[in-house]
Amino acid sequence: MTLPRFLAACRRQPTDTTPIWLMRQAGRYMPEYRAIRAKHSFLEMVRSPEVAAEITLQPVDLLGVDAAILFADILPPLIGMGLELDYLHGEGPVLYNPIRTPADIDALRVPSAEENTPFTLETIRLLRPELDQRGVPLIGFSGAPFTLAAYAIEGGGSKHHARVKALMMGEPAAWDTLMTKLTALVSGYLVAQVEAGAQAVQLFDSWVGQLSPGDFRAHVLPYVQTIIHEVRAKTGVPVIYFGTDTSGFLSDLKSTSADVIGVDWRVDLRAARRVLGDDVAIQGNLDPIALFAPWDAVQPRAADVIQQAGGRAGHIFNLGHGILPETPVDTVRRLVDYVHEYAHQPVP
Amino acid sequence: MTLPRFLAACRRQPTDTTPIWLMRQAGRYMPEYRAIRAKHSFLEMVRSPEVAAEITLQPVDLLGVDAAILFADILPPLIGMGLELDYLHGEGPVLYNPIRTPADIDALRVPSAEENTPFTLETIRLLRPELDQRGVPLIGFSGAPFTLAAYAIEGGGSKHHARVKALMMGEPAAWDTLMTKLTALVSGYLVAQVEAGAQAVQLFDSWVGQLSPGDFRAHVLPYVQTIIHEVRAKTGVPVIYFGTDTSGFLSDLKSTSADVIGVDWRVDLRAARRVLGDDVAIQGNLDPIALFAPWDAVQPRAADVIQQAGGRAGHIFNLGHGILPETPVDTVRRLVDYVHEYAHQPVP
Repeated sequence: MTLPRFLAACRRQPTDTTPIWLMRQAGRYMPEYRAIRAKHSFLEMVRSPEVAAEITLQPVDLLGVDAAILFADILPPLIGMGLELDYLHGEGPVLYNPIRTPADIDALRVPSAEENTPFTLETIRLLRPELDQRGVPLIGFSGAPFTLAAYAIEGGGSKHHARVKALMMGEPAAWDTLMTKLTALVSGYLVAQVEAGAQAVQLFDSWVGQLSPGDFRAHVLPYVQTIIHEVRAKTGVPVIYFGTDTSGFLSDLKSTSADVIGVDWRVDLRAARRVLGDDVAIQGNLDPIALFAPWDAVQPRAADVIQQAGGRAGHIFNLGHGILPETPVDTVRRLVDYVHEYAHQPVP
Repeated sequence: MTLPRFLAACRRQPTDTTPIWLMRQAGRYMPEYRAIRAKHSFLEMVRSPEVAAEITLQPVDLLGVDAAILFADILPPLIGMGLELDYLHGEGPVLYNPIRTPADIDALRVPSAEENTPFTLETIRLLRPELDQRGVPLIGFSGAPFTLAAYAIEGGGSKHHARVKALMMGEPAAWDTLMTKLTALVSGYLVAQVEAGAQAVQLFDSWVGQLSPGDFRAHVLPYVQTIIHEVRAKTGVPVIYFGTDTSGFLSDLKSTSADVIGVDWRVDLRAARRVLGDDVAIQGNLDPIALFAPWDAVQPRAADVIQQAGGRAGHIFNLGHGILPETPVDTVRRLVDYVHEYAHQPVP
């Protein structure tokens, strides 16, 4: 049996056409999602395996994407460490007892994934037979340690990330303790997801681009390396490392040993390929804002991404960040079709 | 007479030590600034030449920086184009009638600088004799066209810059009209500042790093090139082009023809020098958040910036972005002294 397109591309094997999935493909831009969201709080959806599985399947069935990504969020695993998490309407996540001192860090627990997030593992178990029927693989995921630390310390989103950086810069021992705990949590969580049925995993390092290249190398990269090493050694599934704003340290991303490097739209994919070499797959990177433009303006941009990637082997089409809530569904659908048909177009 | 350190570095001439000034060096972190701010609205301060001049001089006298930067803001020049600007306490700037349609763009006027911002030109005229006494040169500045367009279209700050990008991507003719008007405004404004006495000018393109390299090249760079060409041809003073998040298109920054390229902390200065070559000066790039750390953690970071820049000729020390309001003044003062003394330290 041949590998599904997405998994083949993760391993840089040739595919019949470029595979595509979209970050936050199950989300508010879709009326079918909003219909479910109207009946549940965000945390309820994440914690209800039947609901989370249904949401996960929506874009597979409605858009024809080449991979499903588990419906979950990066922050609920922090609850079992001792953080009080909520999602406020229109304001995003909030942590009521953010980490501020070394004592706060010492008090953090590192629960097992089965104890901490059984609902997510159950969601995966429900999904696999459904997705196998459709021939579509399932991606599990976790927040990466820096991004989790940023939320845990700032207490939510942040413009300047002053507190997390100040701890990282000014208290190296406390920082190491925190990152070591998060590394153990994330590593165990991803391995458990694969054991439950995930066929690839993505590490989301959404805020890592706030760091200088030197700080990334010294204070973040070693922990990412540990996670990826452990997940690969224990499971063998492909690992995707995605960060935004990583143009300044592309060459360091290679030393994460990730199978796939996900980049945002700020990265020229030709430059990425030049720096990363041929022995890694690249995922990305259309600007999600492009989907607000008329299709005539979207199409050349999508073509440009494919051309920059320089051929099909080892490229997974995606956006450079998550789909925004007001994105027109019809444009998303046309994008998926266009990427699939691109390889079959006559060369102009 | 030898050039002041800052102006010599702009022209890549050797200096006795690395010159330093700091973006937003006259600002809320300083009690002397807050004392004036308590008596005036922000726009009043900008529009009162005596007050603006006094604020401009504060960091020169209190910190010993190597250049003064005009106290003003990038947005007041938009008022004369027809935009209604205000600064809301704690929420930053707001434009009550943001640009949304091609008709809005057609209606924009392009007033002369003398008509539009006479208070800023008068501030410069007041400042020059004061600064000449101190032997410190004066930097004028303007917002760059993309960043001004972003504020004018979004109506203030923005997380995703969806509206400005959608116009840029979807309505190229309207975009060109808008950028052409802004280019004329900015170019005239900077030339008038130099005629009033500014000895260098900086273009602030604070939001340009939200763009992909391709969009920067196609939709922003040509206008920046026009401005820099005109200012240099008409005045001969050094032009600094500063953007944040520009790692993905460093090589294109060179083709702005700016004398000095300002970069944020996300850029490794060794990489910047490699890409930009030796015939341009580089300004930057300590992470402003580093100033919240204890001095023992700040010092090696400051040394690293100087070492990355690879020697004194053609490097102007600065932060990677503006000083934040809560920054400890004492750390800022120590930073200025440390940079000045660095060249005189015995090599370890």
